[in-house]
Amino acid sequence: MSLDGVIARDTKSPLDSPPWARAAVDGFACLGDDVLHASLQKPARLALLGQAMAGEVFCGKVRRGQCVEVATGSSMPRGCDCVMMKEYAHNENDFILIGERGYPSLNVSARGEDVRRGEVIARKGRRIRPQDLGILRSCGIREVLVKRKPRVGIAITGSELVRSVSALGAGKILESNSLMISSLVKNCGGEVVFSRMVKDEKVSLQRVLEEGSRKSDFLLVTGGSSVGKKDLVSDIVDPLFSGVAMRPGRPFGFSRNPPVFIMSGYPVACFIQFYAFVIPVLERMLGTEIQKFAFGILGEKVASEVGRRDFVRVRMEKDLVYPVALKGSGIISSLVLSDGFITIEENREGIEAGEKVCIHMWV
Amino acid sequence: MSLDGVIARDTKSPLDSPPWARAAVDGFACLGDDVLHASLQKPARLALLGQAMAGEVFCGKVRRGQCVEVATGSSMPRGCDCVMMKEYAHNENDFILIGERGYPSLNVSARGEDVRRGEVIARKGRRIRPQDLGILRSCGIREVLVKRKPRVGIAITGSELVRSVSALGAGKILESNSLMISSLVKNCGGEVVFSRMVKDEKVSLQRVLEEGSRKSDFLLVTGGSSVGKKDLVSDIVDPLFSGVAMRPGRPFGFSRNPPVFIMSGYPVACFIQFYAFVIPVLERMLGTEIQKFAFGILGEKVASEVGRRDFVRVRMEKDLVYPVALKGSGIISSLVLSDGFITIEENREGIEAGEKVCIHMWV
Repeated sequence: MSLDGVIARDTKSPLDSPPWARAAVDGFACLGDDVLHASLQKPARLALLGQAMAGEVFCGKVRRGQCVEVATGSSMPRGCDCVMMKEYAHNENDFILIGERGYPSLNVSARGEDVRRGEVIARKGRRIRPQDLGILRSCGIREVLVKRKPRVGIAITGSELVRSVSALGAGKILESNSLMISSLVKNCGGEVVFSRMVKDEKVSLQRVLEEGSRKSDFLLVTGGSSVGKKDLVSDIVDPLFSGVAMRPGRPFGFSRNPPVFIMSGYPVACFIQFYAFVIPVLERMLGTEIQKFAFGILGEKVASEVGRRDFVRVRMEKDLVYPVALKGSGIISSLVLSDGFITIEENREGIEAGEKVCIHMWV
Repeated sequence: MSLDGVIARDTKSPLDSPPWARAAVDGFACLGDDVLHASLQKPARLALLGQAMAGEVFCGKVRRGQCVEVATGSSMPRGCDCVMMKEYAHNENDFILIGERGYPSLNVSARGEDVRRGEVIARKGRRIRPQDLGILRSCGIREVLVKRKPRVGIAITGSELVRSVSALGAGKILESNSLMISSLVKNCGGEVVFSRMVKDEKVSLQRVLEEGSRKSDFLLVTGGSSVGKKDLVSDIVDPLFSGVAMRPGRPFGFSRNPPVFIMSGYPVACFIQFYAFVIPVLERMLGTEIQKFAFGILGEKVASEVGRRDFVRVRMEKDLVYPVALKGSGIISSLVLSDGFITIEENREGIEAGEKVCIHMWV
């Protein structure tokens, strides 16, 4: 049972927690009725029968006029319904003087106060956090059913790509999308089961797409969506559409059978396409929310063109939101310097400073 | 190089990215001056010298009246400073007719446009995200210096604690803090190097605290802060203080030498103490921000007592913030049902609905 999973079904507690009434403070367990009128001037005088420290159980039964010393977390001695804090008590031979008012239920955690047997403690679709592990474990659950991780394949296409600086000749660039995308997949609760780099050559591409599709739930193909290469990928898979009215990320296509996301080779476009198209699919497969949102006030006007949806990288200063302004749409630095993005709808020419915006936070 | 780390020093790019000027679209590379006045009616007529697809380099030099076919990402042929989109071009024998205006620099990504050699691409103190891996890798950096993970020891104290349901007799409860805290440490970029469960017995406790302190940068001791047990732990370590005016989490102490956080045994108090005291220390050690904040509007009045700081668990509905109202302060469900917490300062009696609040989000 670990942090890395999404709960597959509502999980109920097999027991009450706490499993018995317990003392919520250090002090003296007694009957609340005995201390209803206690005060510094007229303390209640209770016979001390013994003690039950944490983990111990007091065997006898406590009656009117009696008490037992307990620690925070001690099981409540039989007969007691109240714990008076140590700070208000004084020893007098075998008696305890209580100089403060009490009542039944004071400083007692009832059995099942935190969790009742049969209560759902981990909801289906919850991504497991430390406190979920805490409540499951405290209810005696050591293993929990989680959703199968989506199996994602990655095919990086492009004859211009090389893996190492030493191979970096004229016309070549370093391949960086595979590491970036596989980290995104991991952060979103998926598993990369296939990752290949392939040149823009039909036979190799076909072999890689076939193997990748066979091994994964869906395949992410980068660098396969520009006009020149589109035909190459489209000859192999049959995209439902090619090109989306968005910026960055316009060159994007999707094929249903086999399920292939045809993505841009440009890191920024590819990254945004991942948020726009891949994360929603992972959310459906896992039945959970992956994308986190924040809300803020736009600190500076952002312009946009009508007819396409803009994905504007922004940084946050408290609840003020600023666009990360860099020339060039392929600028990967804009991802590094930002905390997330806002979208500007197709029918808007921009967003004015002072307007409330919803930020999609980087996962 | 992976997601799990904090950059230890400013890291500069050893190269320009892109390493050469490249085509930003599919089309025809030419001299911008040749297409300054091109139009559908009066297209520019350019001699097609050849092509340079992605990864290829065109060997010759392009002069006035000439062009080369290029793909997105192609190295710009020598002499060219402009790429005209394929959509505006027509073939006519060995000539290309360009039916649209262009100019020098159009559709060209300059060398170093994204990252200049020597530019800092990963700042000291940055927790590595997918896009950081992307930019580092695209600049040829395969390994990066990260901060040493803080080594955290955990000592769970309490004679009432057992590990399994089968050992769950009268007065016993299941231990759940170790898994919860170690997951928190992990989520905060630390490493648990020591974890023990120990009874409330001085010799054992002393041995565990000594071993834990020796092996870790600091030790988290749970269940050692209530009045009854305080003396036990205080006999071994020497706390600077015991008890903090906060709720939940009041029973808390800290010893400087050895560095020991003396925390509550109650999961909720312990959890909040982790956020209030341990996370700030981890942030200092790692030189990074771990706690994430969001801002919202309180949807419902929250009352508080003057004289202590309240840590109120809240859930968010878009930018509206609601307290997670559950009776009992030890209620672990309140952690599960919430997204984070807000604090109410010592001198305030509460926060009114409609007020702006800052939410400490669960890590």
